Amino acid sequence: MYRTYNAGDIRATDIEYPVTLAGWVARRRDHGGVEFIDLRDASGVVQVVFRDGAAAELAKDLRNEFCIQVKGVVARRPEGNENPDLPTGEIEVVADELRVLSEAAPLPLPIDDNVDVGEDVRLRHRYLDLRRGGPASAMRMRSEANRIARELLHDEGFIEIETPTLTRSTPEGARDFLVPVRLQPGTWYALPQSPQLFKQLLMVAGFERYYQIARCYRDEDFRADRQPEFTQLDIEASFVEERDVIELGEKIVRALWKKLADHDLPESIPLITWHDAMNRYGSDKPDLRFGLELVDLSAYLQGTEFRVFASALATLGGHVGAVVMPGGASQTRKQLDGWQDWAKARGAKGLAYVVFDAETGDPRGPVAKNLSSDHLAGLAKAVGAKPGDAVFFAASADKIEAQELLGAARLEIGRRGGFIDESEWSFCWVVDAPMFGRTDDGGWTAVHHPFTSPNSEWASTFVDNPGEALAYAYDIVCNGNEIGGGSIRIHDGAMQRQVFDVLGIDEAEAADKFGFLLDAFQYGPPPHGGIAFGWDRICSLLAGADSIREVIAFPKSRGGHDPLTGAPTPITQEQRKEAGVDAKPAVALDA
Amino acid sequence: MYRTYNAGDIRATDIEYPVTLAGWVARRRDHGGVEFIDLRDASGVVQVVFRDGAAAELAKDLRNEFCIQVKGVVARRPEGNENPDLPTGEIEVVADELRVLSEAAPLPLPIDDNVDVGEDVRLRHRYLDLRRGGPASAMRMRSEANRIARELLHDEGFIEIETPTLTRSTPEGARDFLVPVRLQPGTWYALPQSPQLFKQLLMVAGFERYYQIARCYRDEDFRADRQPEFTQLDIEASFVEERDVIELGEKIVRALWKKLADHDLPESIPLITWHDAMNRYGSDKPDLRFGLELVDLSAYLQGTEFRVFASALATLGGHVGAVVMPGGASQTRKQLDGWQDWAKARGAKGLAYVVFDAETGDPRGPVAKNLSSDHLAGLAKAVGAKPGDAVFFAASADKIEAQELLGAARLEIGRRGGFIDESEWSFCWVVDAPMFGRTDDGGWTAVHHPFTSPNSEWASTFVDNPGEALAYAYDIVCNGNEIGGGSIRIHDGAMQRQVFDVLGIDEAEAADKFGFLLDAFQYGPPPHGGIAFGWDRICSLLAGADSIREVIAFPKSRGGHDPLTGAPTPITQEQRKEAGVDAKPAVALDA
Repeated sequence: MYRTYNAGDIRATDIEYPVTLAGWVARRRDHGGVEFIDLRDASGVVQVVFRDGAAAELAKDLRNEFCIQVKGVVARRPEGNENPDLPTGEIEVVADELRVLSEAAPLPLPIDDNVDVGEDVRLRHRYLDLRRGGPASAMRMRSEANRIARELLHDEGFIEIETPTLTRSTPEGARDFLVPVRLQPGTWYALPQSPQLFKQLLMVAGFERYYQIARCYRDEDFRADRQPEFTQLDIEASFVEERDVIELGEKIVRALWKKLADHDLPESIPLITWHDAMNRYGSDKPDLRFGLELVDLSAYLQGTEFRVFASALATLGGHVGAVVMPGGASQTRKQLDGWQDWAKARGAKGLAYVVFDAETGDPRGPVAKNLSSDHLAGLAKAVGAKPGDAVFFAASADKIEAQELLGAARLEIGRRGGFIDESEWSFCWVVDAPMFGRTDDGGWTAVHHPFTSPNSEWASTFVDNPGEALAYAYDIVCNGNEIGGGSIRIHDGAMQRQVFDVLGIDEAEAADKFGFLLDAFQYGPPPHGGIAFGWDRICSLLAGADSIREVIAFPKSRGGHDPLTGAPTPITQEQRKEAGVDAKPAVALDA
Repeated sequence: MYRTYNAGDIRATDIEYPVTLAGWVARRRDHGGVEFIDLRDASGVVQVVFRDGAAAELAKDLRNEFCIQVKGVVARRPEGNENPDLPTGEIEVVADELRVLSEAAPLPLPIDDNVDVGEDVRLRHRYLDLRRGGPASAMRMRSEANRIARELLHDEGFIEIETPTLTRSTPEGARDFLVPVRLQPGTWYALPQSPQLFKQLLMVAGFERYYQIARCYRDEDFRADRQPEFTQLDIEASFVEERDVIELGEKIVRALWKKLADHDLPESIPLITWHDAMNRYGSDKPDLRFGLELVDLSAYLQGTEFRVFASALATLGGHVGAVVMPGGASQTRKQLDGWQDWAKARGAKGLAYVVFDAETGDPRGPVAKNLSSDHLAGLAKAVGAKPGDAVFFAASADKIEAQELLGAARLEIGRRGGFIDESEWSFCWVVDAPMFGRTDDGGWTAVHHPFTSPNSEWASTFVDNPGEALAYAYDIVCNGNEIGGGSIRIHDGAMQRQVFDVLGIDEAEAADKFGFLLDAFQYGPPPHGGIAFGWDRICSLLAGADSIREVIAFPKSRGGHDPLTGAPTPITQEQRKEAGVDAKPAVALDA
C-alpha cells in the first residue's frame, strides 16, 4: 500500500498517528540540517520534517517534483510555526522513512500559481502545467460541471445517448473533418459538427428526452479561441415549447453557477428579442453588465447634408446610429485617432465622432463641422450625452452592419472606460431571431438550420415575408458570451416543404442533403426542440479563465497544432496506401 | 402545453381527472363504431376510447404511429375489460378531443417486440426500430449503466477528464483512422484507439484518479461484432497496486450487475492465472459456466508411435491435449465428421477423436487404431471419460495453438451439448499474463503495451527470461467474454529502458514512438495503473443482447457501412482539395 492518508486531509486529530504518504516534493528547505518538505498530492499539501537518520540524509538529495513515499508520525507544529492559511497548517509529519518512487529532471516551468512562461511551453509540458493549482482545479471544476448537469438532467427524466462521430459527409459541409475508410476504399466518413441530425432522429424514435455531453468537430480557421474539437452539452426534448426548453436551460445554468461560482441567478433570466438586442446593444449576444445603449439617429438626422450619413439614409433600411462614451471628451487626439484604427481593423471605414466640451457642452470634432446647426444643437439630447462625453457614429445602408460596429464600439468603451464590473454575472435569453437571411445572390438562407420552426406569429405567413419572419430560436448569453442556443424544430411536413421552397431547395436537393432525416419525418415525428450549451465556454467562464484552452486537458494551439504530441504530422506512403486515401470510389461523384 | 400526464403513469387514483396526453398510436381497434387506441409515449401505454362526436370521427382515420394529442377524462375500465399485465390496465381515457400532430406513412417494419425483418432494414429505419420495446429499453439501460459507473467512480474520488480525439498518428498505428488537416496541408491527425497515452499523462500531471467514458476508434476488419467506433469506460489511478485496481473493477461490475441484472456477484471474483486459464480452458477468457476442463496428455502419450502426436511431442514445448465431450459417443458419423469441418474452418488440420462405447467403454474411432494398446487402455482414465463419452485431441509443436483449438472445442461442446446454463453469470479475473510474446523474426513483442510492468516476481529477472516473465496485467471475463482489462504501468526509467531493450527498441525509436510520454516520465511519474472496460460489450451482456449493435443507438453494419445515413460516401474533388488531402507536407516523411 502506497499510502494510508491523503496529504491534504491530515488534521490535529491525527496527531501521534503513524502515516504513510505518497506524492510530490513541492518544496524543500534545509534549516540547519533539518529537512522540511512540502509534500503535495491530489488532496493538498502537508509539511514533512526529516530531523535525522538515513531518511534525513536521503532527503537532502530531493529536488522539486520528485515522487516520493514517506512514513512518519503526525505531530503538532512547534508553537509559532503554524500556518493558518493551510488546512494542514497545525500539524507536520515527522518522517523516519523515505523512498524515492521516481526522480524529476530540472523543470521547464515551475509548479507555481504564477508562471511567466509562454503558453506554448505550458502546453508542451501540459502534464507539469496541470500540476499547478489553477489548471488542476479548472479540470476538477469541469468534472463537477459535468456531474451537476447530468444529475439535473437525470432528475428531469432525460437519458444519455451516444451518437456516432463517424458520420456521413455532405458536399456542403465545408467545415467537416474527413476520414478515409480503408475497408471501403475511396469513401470517407465525416466527423460531426454537432449531433443535430441524430438527436432529431432520437426524437422520431420516441425517446422524448435526450442529452449527451458530446464531442464535436469543426475544421475552421483558428481565430478567436476556437478548437478543432470541442464539447457541447446537447439536449433535445419532444412535446415541448420554447418556454419549456428555456426553463430547462435556466435550471442547468442556475445549478452550475450556484454550485460552482456560488452565484444566485435571478428568479428568471430576462428575455430580449433579437431585434431589441441589435437595436439596443448592437449584438445578438449583448453584454448586459453595463448600459451605454445604442441610439438610433436615423429619424433625427433625416435631411442631413453630411455625405456619409445622407448616403446611408438614402437607402431603404439605411441606418445612422450612435453610442455615447461617458467622459470621452477628455481623450487625446491620439486616443481619438486610435478609435479610427480600431474601426478599420474591424473592416469599417472609420468611426465618426463628436465630443462635447466638458465646460460648455459645445459639440466639436470633424463630424460637428458637417452637421447643420439644428442637428448639432439637439445632438446631446438626442444621444443622451452630457458635457465631457464623446459620441461615436456608425452609418450604413445595411442597418445590421452599422449596429454591429456600434455594438463592438460599446464593448470597447465598456472595457476602456472601466464600465464593466468584472465580478458581475449577467445573463439573458435572446429570442425571436430571424428565420432567414439574404444570400449574396438575392435568395434566402436559414439563419439557424432549415428545420428551425417559425414562431407562432409567423407560422402561416413566413413564406410571404421571409425577411421579417421570426423563428422559435433562442440563445442564452452570459456577460456577452453566447453559452448556448437552440430552437424548436419543424415537425410538420407541409411547413418543412414551405421552408425548403423559401430556401430554393427542391425535392431532389432536399433528399440529397437531408434524405434520412426527411425519411424519418414521414413516420409521425413529434413536436420537438432542443438546446446545445458550449461546454468549453461555460467551464471557462466558471473557472474565470481567459480562454477555453484553460478548461481543456490537452488543447490545441493555433492552427490546430498540439505542442505536446506534435500532432498533426505527415503520414507515410505506406499509411496513405493502407488507409485508401487515393483509392477511386466504386461510384464516381464530383462537384 | 402538449400534455399534462405521461400515458404510462395514469392509475386508478386519477379516475375522473381530466388529462391531456401526447404520443403515438400503437394500435387502433374499432368495436362497433367505438374507437380504441393504445396510446404510447416514452413512459408506457394507455388505452384511449373515442365513443362519439367529432373526435371519434377523426379517430377513424388514425393509423399506426401517427403522433397525436388527446384530451379526455380518466375512467375505470368496464368490468371484465381490465388488463392486469399493464400498469395502466385498470383505467382508460375517455377522449373528447383529438389532434393529429403528424401522420405516419405505412411502416417498413412493425413496432412490435418481435419483428422478422433483417437487421439491415432495422438499421436503415433505426428511428422506428428504437420505438420497439426491446431496443428502446436497451438504450435506457445503457444510460443507467453510465450513471451507475459515474456515481460509483465519483464516490471513489475519481474525476472525469476528456482527452483529445484528434491526436498524433504514429507510423506503426496501422489501425488508426486518419484525418487530413486543412490548416496544415499535408499533415494528418489520427483518431485514438484508446486514451492510453493521455491517461498516463494525467497521472504524471498528478490527478491520481481519472475516468472517462471514452469514444475510441479502430480501423479494423469488421469480423466478430466489432464497430469502427466504440466506447470504453477508461480508468487510471496513481499509487495503486494490482489488487487496488481489481477491487475497484469488482465494485463497478458488482454495482452494474446488481442494479441492472438483479444479480449478486460473489464476495470476490475468482482470480485465475493466464497459464492456468490456458491449461484448463484453452482460453485467456475462459467461460466458467461449465467444466469440461482440458487434459494435458503430453506426458501420458510420451513414446506414442502415432505420427501426429509423436511429431508434436518431438518439439520442445510441443503439446498433446484433450477435451471430453460427455455423451459424445452417441454422435453419428456425420456429426463426428462435422467436427472436422468445424476445426478446418478454424484453420486447424482436423480434430482427432476417440469415442468410448456406451456399453463396453471400449475406445474406437480413427485415432484409436493408431494408439498402442497400453495408451488405449488407460486413455479413459487419463482424460476422465466415461463409457458413452467422446474425447477430442489437439496436438501441436506450439502448445498455445493446441490449447486454443481445444478451448474452442470445449466451448462448442458446451453449446452443442447444452452444458451452458444461459441464465448463469460467471466472472473471473485472468492475471499474471506473459509480458512478451515471440515475433516472427525471433524477437520479442509486448503482449499488452511496452509500459506494462512485470509483476514483483519478475521485476528484476524479466530481462534474462522474457519468454517466461509475467506482467501485472489483468483481464476481467464474464461468461467467456473479456469485458475489461488493464495493467500496472512502469514508472521507473531504468526498468522502462530494460523493456525497450528486450523489445529491440533503441533510444531513437523510443523517442520517435513514445517521445512525449517518455519526456513526461522524466518528471516524477507516480506508480500508476488502470483498467478499461469494453462498455458496448458490458451493456450488451446486461441487455441480454446477441450483439453490441443492440446497445448502440446508430451502429454501423458490416464493413463500417451505416444503412441509415449511407456513410461512408465518396467525396467531391472540391472537398478533397479543400481538406488538403493531396497537399505535400512541409516536411517530407516516408516509410
